[in-house]
Amino acid sequence: MNAQQTLELIRERKPLVHQITNYVVMNETANATLALGALPVMAHAREEVEEMVGLASALVLNIGTLSPDWVEAMLLAGRAANVRGIPVVLDPVGSGATRYRTDTARRILDEVGVTVLRGNPGEVATLVGVAAEVRGVESIGAGGDPGDLAREAGRRLGLVASVTGAVDHVSDGETVVKVSNGHPLLAAVTGTGCMSSAITGCFLAVKPDAPLDAAVEALIAFGVAGEDAAREAKGPGSFHVALYDALANLRLDGREKLA
Amino acid sequence: MNAQQTLELIRERKPLVHQITNYVVMNETANATLALGALPVMAHAREEVEEMVGLASALVLNIGTLSPDWVEAMLLAGRAANVRGIPVVLDPVGSGATRYRTDTARRILDEVGVTVLRGNPGEVATLVGVAAEVRGVESIGAGGDPGDLAREAGRRLGLVASVTGAVDHVSDGETVVKVSNGHPLLAAVTGTGCMSSAITGCFLAVKPDAPLDAAVEALIAFGVAGEDAAREAKGPGSFHVALYDALANLRLDGREKLA
Amino acid sequence: MNAQQTLELIRERKPLVHQITNYVVMNETANATLALGALPVMAHAREEVEEMVGLASALVLNIGTLSPDWVEAMLLAGRAANVRGIPVVLDPVGSGATRYRTDTARRILDEVGVTVLRGNPGEVATLVGVAAEVRGVESIGAGGDPGDLAREAGRRLGLVASVTGAVDHVSDGETVVKVSNGHPLLAAVTGTGCMSSAITGCFLAVKPDAPLDAAVEALIAFGVAGEDAAREAKGPGSFHVALYDALANLRLDGREKLA
Repeated sequence: MNAQQTLELIRERKPLVHQITNYVVMNETANATLALGALPVMAHAREEVEEMVGLASALVLNIGTLSPDWVEAMLLAGRAANVRGIPVVLDPVGSGATRYRTDTARRILDEVGVTVLRGNPGEVATLVGVAAEVRGVESIGAGGDPGDLAREAGRRLGLVASVTGAVDHVSDGETVVKVSNGHPLLAAVTGTGCMSSAITGCFLAVKPDAPLDAAVEALIAFGVAGEDAAREAKGPGSFHVALYDALANLRLDGREKLA
Repeated sequence: MNAQQTLELIRERKPLVHQITNYVVMNETANATLALGALPVMAHAREEVEEMVGLASALVLNIGTLSPDWVEAMLLAGRAANVRGIPVVLDPVGSGATRYRTDTARRILDEVGVTVLRGNPGEVATLVGVAAEVRGVESIGAGGDPGDLAREAGRRLGLVASVTGAVDHVSDGETVVKVSNGHPLLAAVTGTGCMSSAITGCFLAVKPDAPLDAAVEALIAFGVAGEDAAREAKGPGSFHVALYDALANLRLDGREKLA
Repeated sequence: MNAQQTLELIRERKPLVHQITNYVVMNETANATLALGALPVMAHAREEVEEMVGLASALVLNIGTLSPDWVEAMLLAGRAANVRGIPVVLDPVGSGATRYRTDTARRILDEVGVTVLRGNPGEVATLVGVAAEVRGVESIGAGGDPGDLAREAGRRLGLVASVTGAVDHVSDGETVVKVSNGHPLLAAVTGTGCMSSAITGCFLAVKPDAPLDAAVEALIAFGVAGEDAAREAKGPGSFHVALYDALANLRLDGREKLA
């Protein structure tokens, strides 16, 4: 695992990362992807998602403002990504808050081979059938240790589970890696979870055969960017702006905080 | 009325404010809500809006980029909010500019018990049947005194009318309160009217039984944030960023300008 | 041609510019329009687009996140703009990347009288039938000289072609004007191409009878704003913010770089 090397690979190859995501954060995840050094493309029409996936090196599915047409497009795109063998990230925003979100995330997990599931503890717990409280899109409580939750999710769902919070826990069902990078201001800006999913897609795009490493490195990268951005921030607005600057100027050597 | 006390209550309780709003400002109203100290959730699918309303402490409906499916979702969510007894804010963006917007705002007012109607003079005048000129989403002219307009709207529609402009006028049909907080740069950033509606939802969420006070306090809070943000702004871009910082760092004691 | 004079006309008249654009950049193009001094309105419902066009001085169509309903709305709005004789800008985002985008852009060009086509070399080359490589929404390669491409597009399509890149080439099919204003950071922020299309709409709104001049002046204005914004930027985030400040504080006298 060497996050700096993978980051350099992203900047060199500029992989196209196809994102079918929510209305709230589209601009933000596109700009985070660009700032990191990859190329975002947003396309959701059933008429074109399969063809667009054909150009991409990774696919990110995010159900933050889902509706039936978008869900169909996500399934079409996900299957096309599977056929091509490119990695798929699922961000199950708000799973546990409404049945529609929970059922949709489960349907995507059933019908699409997902490489990395990136969510908060409440969302991930909901999807592995553990009791959790999700208020809107916030995880209020998911009983138990998040490391155990990540391992359980990885094992039961057969993927890499990336459970983010003050400390992130990433697991392939066996190994659990804890990432302590980040800053509390990340929770004061909407869409930072979605950005971490997009950045996970960028790392997977150049490291498709090592999804656990890619998912961990992505969280290190995003966390370090948060730490850098917080240095000059006066609040969530200036932090948000500095986050893109930090992603563009990111150097990761020796910055990882792995617990 | 004590805006600072209500603000502290928002920060303590972190109420969930469900927003069905327009594509242009979703990120902005979510971030304004978070910066103030409440929790936003954006959900518009007919499949889930009623269930999401069930988790929320206030509902904000905004017709800024309406289409038939969204209007149906707003009606479903509005009725569910009424059943639960949580406050509803309506932002009738562009009413008076097209028949579709005017008719939709009227339909929501007919079918949903709206607690606060927050709009510009042209939009509100249109909805009480007073001649007005609305160009796109800008109020060009609404004849007469905005205080009279607010009182008339409050009385005829049976709600609190929050008519915003250089000076805001808020009325429950009897009392009219003028709020002079704010800054001209607020008009140079898109979605600041929508943000003031979202923030009205946050104040109502913790003060549902005093909607006139909540609506006034929300406009004081947003206006003071605008004043704070303007201090270091070099233009609309830096003002916009500083606005979120100001909302997060807001202190309202002695700042209200009530005329 | 005098970009400063046209800019002053925009600030004086504040023309309404109706934009049917993509989800990713709606907030950004609205804010760029406002910062420049014009008024944006975003409306996409088939129920209202023709009526909204009736209030506007220019129409901007952008297929960045297209779907069937939106395409129908663009066609309705485009035809209504033609009937009223107001200028139409088409931004064919991602043409060449998927058949759906290419076909939709061609359909709009067939069914609507487009005044200015604003795209990158790959998108424009695709639409005049020249081989090009478009990866997602990025132009990777469009063989040949972009000045020749702009002239060819202008001539074959009977419009002003505005082919943007490190150097922009604008042509009415005969004259080709090169604009060298701009800054590399413009490519690090999503939606800057879309913003240049929106600003082209603003210039056309007050100079509808001289579309070549209006298109060139718009690119000078946006390029100069990019140069001003870059001066204090630490990365793409602070550049993005400074871009709105720069548009609001823009002075163009003697700043144009015409090659």
